[in-house]
Amino acid sequence: MVKIKVDLKDRGYDVIVGTDTLPELGALIEADKLGREIFIITDPLVNDLYGDILRKGLKQRAKTVEVARGEQQKNLKIAAKLFDELVKFGAHRDSLIIGLGGGVIGDLAGFIAATYMRGINYIQVPTTLLAQVDAAIGGKTGVNHPKCKNLIGCFYQPKAVFIDVKTLSTLPARELRTGLAEVVKYGVIEDADFFKFLEANAHHLNTKAFEEEETKRAALKLWQTIVVESVKVKAKVVEKDEKEAGLRMILNYGHTVGHVIESLTRYRAYNHGEAVAIGMVVAAMIAQRMGMLDKEIVIRIKGLLEKLGLPTEIDNLPAKKIIAALSIDKKVSAGKVNFVLPTKLGSVDVRNNVPASIIKQSLVELGAK
Amino acid sequence: MVKIKVDLKDRGYDVIVGTDTLPELGALIEADKLGREIFIITDPLVNDLYGDILRKGLKQRAKTVEVARGEQQKNLKIAAKLFDELVKFGAHRDSLIIGLGGGVIGDLAGFIAATYMRGINYIQVPTTLLAQVDAAIGGKTGVNHPKCKNLIGCFYQPKAVFIDVKTLSTLPARELRTGLAEVVKYGVIEDADFFKFLEANAHHLNTKAFEEEETKRAALKLWQTIVVESVKVKAKVVEKDEKEAGLRMILNYGHTVGHVIESLTRYRAYNHGEAVAIGMVVAAMIAQRMGMLDKEIVIRIKGLLEKLGLPTEIDNLPAKKIIAALSIDKKVSAGKVNFVLPTKLGSVDVRNNVPASIIKQSLVELGAK
Repeated sequence: MVKIKVDLKDRGYDVIVGTDTLPELGALIEADKLGREIFIITDPLVNDLYGDILRKGLKQRAKTVEVARGEQQKNLKIAAKLFDELVKFGAHRDSLIIGLGGGVIGDLAGFIAATYMRGINYIQVPTTLLAQVDAAIGGKTGVNHPKCKNLIGCFYQPKAVFIDVKTLSTLPARELRTGLAEVVKYGVIEDADFFKFLEANAHHLNTKAFEEEETKRAALKLWQTIVVESVKVKAKVVEKDEKEAGLRMILNYGHTVGHVIESLTRYRAYNHGEAVAIGMVVAAMIAQRMGMLDKEIVIRIKGLLEKLGLPTEIDNLPAKKIIAALSIDKKVSAGKVNFVLPTKLGSVDVRNNVPASIIKQSLVELGAK
Repeated sequence: MVKIKVDLKDRGYDVIVGTDTLPELGALIEADKLGREIFIITDPLVNDLYGDILRKGLKQRAKTVEVARGEQQKNLKIAAKLFDELVKFGAHRDSLIIGLGGGVIGDLAGFIAATYMRGINYIQVPTTLLAQVDAAIGGKTGVNHPKCKNLIGCFYQPKAVFIDVKTLSTLPARELRTGLAEVVKYGVIEDADFFKFLEANAHHLNTKAFEEEETKRAALKLWQTIVVESVKVKAKVVEKDEKEAGLRMILNYGHTVGHVIESLTRYRAYNHGEAVAIGMVVAAMIAQRMGMLDKEIVIRIKGLLEKLGLPTEIDNLPAKKIIAALSIDKKVSAGKVNFVLPTKLGSVDVRNNVPASIIKQSLVELGAK
């Protein structure tokens, strides 16, 4: 087990990463007195796979509530139902919420914990790669508004993030890939060595290795390294800028255009990582056109994403529509669109002065009409 | 104008108290760069009385949204509508919300600000005595759950609290009295001199003085003193315990039983201050029965509340029902009911070991069946 500290003073916590760790969560909750009773929010599939393993280790009274799968469940109506369930359960200020699942479950569980009785303890137990390396760390919680993803939410830190990389072994290939987009992002924005490590291991980063018992062990070791290194980057950035006042913005590399692509295709054509992969290539191309980045790096970023099976072209959206939609996105400050642009591997700059013409050229180069 | 600092480090802010201050808020917002555009949440009556006065001073693009009056408006559905309006308005992270009105408007506006895009700036402009001396200060925000008041919410501090005591001159007598209950509370829990000041001035603390132009000026001066002294106590307690982990609990003096009375009578028979007034007398009686408080002080507390026209008896609720309801109230920690009990004027103790028999005797003495 590896412990990575997220140092936010009185709001600080550990991210615990290991293999076969799920049964040990109960002991941690008891040792750190994190909750008198436990309310687990999960989805039916994850509950089937890991619910019992987790619950077996719990020593407290616990109730599990399932939320149907899918991003569209992350809304105020479902939140209202969860509040009802918490009241029925008799949850108090010293109760604990556990979010067991992917990013949707984590965001929802965090938001409920942030707003139930003005904030109670919660622990993230992310079971997807995307949630393990990104969503579960940093205290972003929230639900979607019909017009804008994650529009309603809080910054509210968990008491711990508890990761069992073995849960990755049951992920569909596409789910694994969506997480890899964020993993690549960490290499680009902060850690050139990690980027090279990913380039060297790209051919192992898929679900195949999980199929045979003998390769599974090596695969879990590799995934543990990937999760740990990713979490380290995320934790470092979050520590310096808990509430996204400045630096944390670099985590939005690929997300400016990525969110717009997700939203314009109504969260159907692309999943989050796929949209971010495209967004990262767009941003790299913009950086190149702005004279900030060598073409060779653009090619390496695009190449790694392709090797990992992620999309890097936009073939179904008009550039005009993407540009128009950019201005309603959350990443807008003082009326200008912020772009996170790489300057070399492991380093980025935030710019809000990208000319629309350069955005358009980059989009068109990637296939947008 | 008097400025009272609420020192919460990076979350600190000023409470500004004065007469005819409303037109000056715009200049403050501009000077402190608190918002690029302004979204005002208010109710129809307050908007009629003070909306234009406030808006005249604003230099920014502003939109006003009215929420119908009444505690029952403070719910997730209305919150959802306000999120819709914010999106329509094009509110971003650097937009500002102003809550112009009483406690309902303030709690709602604060909750919306706390959760829109994970938190944007807001300013409280409380127009009732209750909101000026209590609800607007300390960052408690939230909406009601059908089963429990303020169940859904956050701790989220405003950027300023801007009080114009002139707004008190248009309050109905009963509204003024409900605020006075909290004012008396500050005397009991923290400031014996202030309690004595209230005893000495009790006969002036009503709406009569506002009726004649010549007495109005003196009345406004008196009310300004009362608001300033109350805010000082509240600010002091909030500074020491922002999130109600311990000390802040003393602000719940009278609220343990008060909330239950409000809730059991479905927020119809008593308003907040009236229920708290009864709760304060109950708590004082419990303190006396626990051997913590002289009977003389119980009589003085009850006497002052009566002089101010507040109820101090429960004539329509069975003691049994009140005791049963106490355990679902938020003021429960580790399964025990916390009571804030006076030990003398200006000092209280928190106890969670009050025998049910003493609670019952005290309730029955006040008329409960």
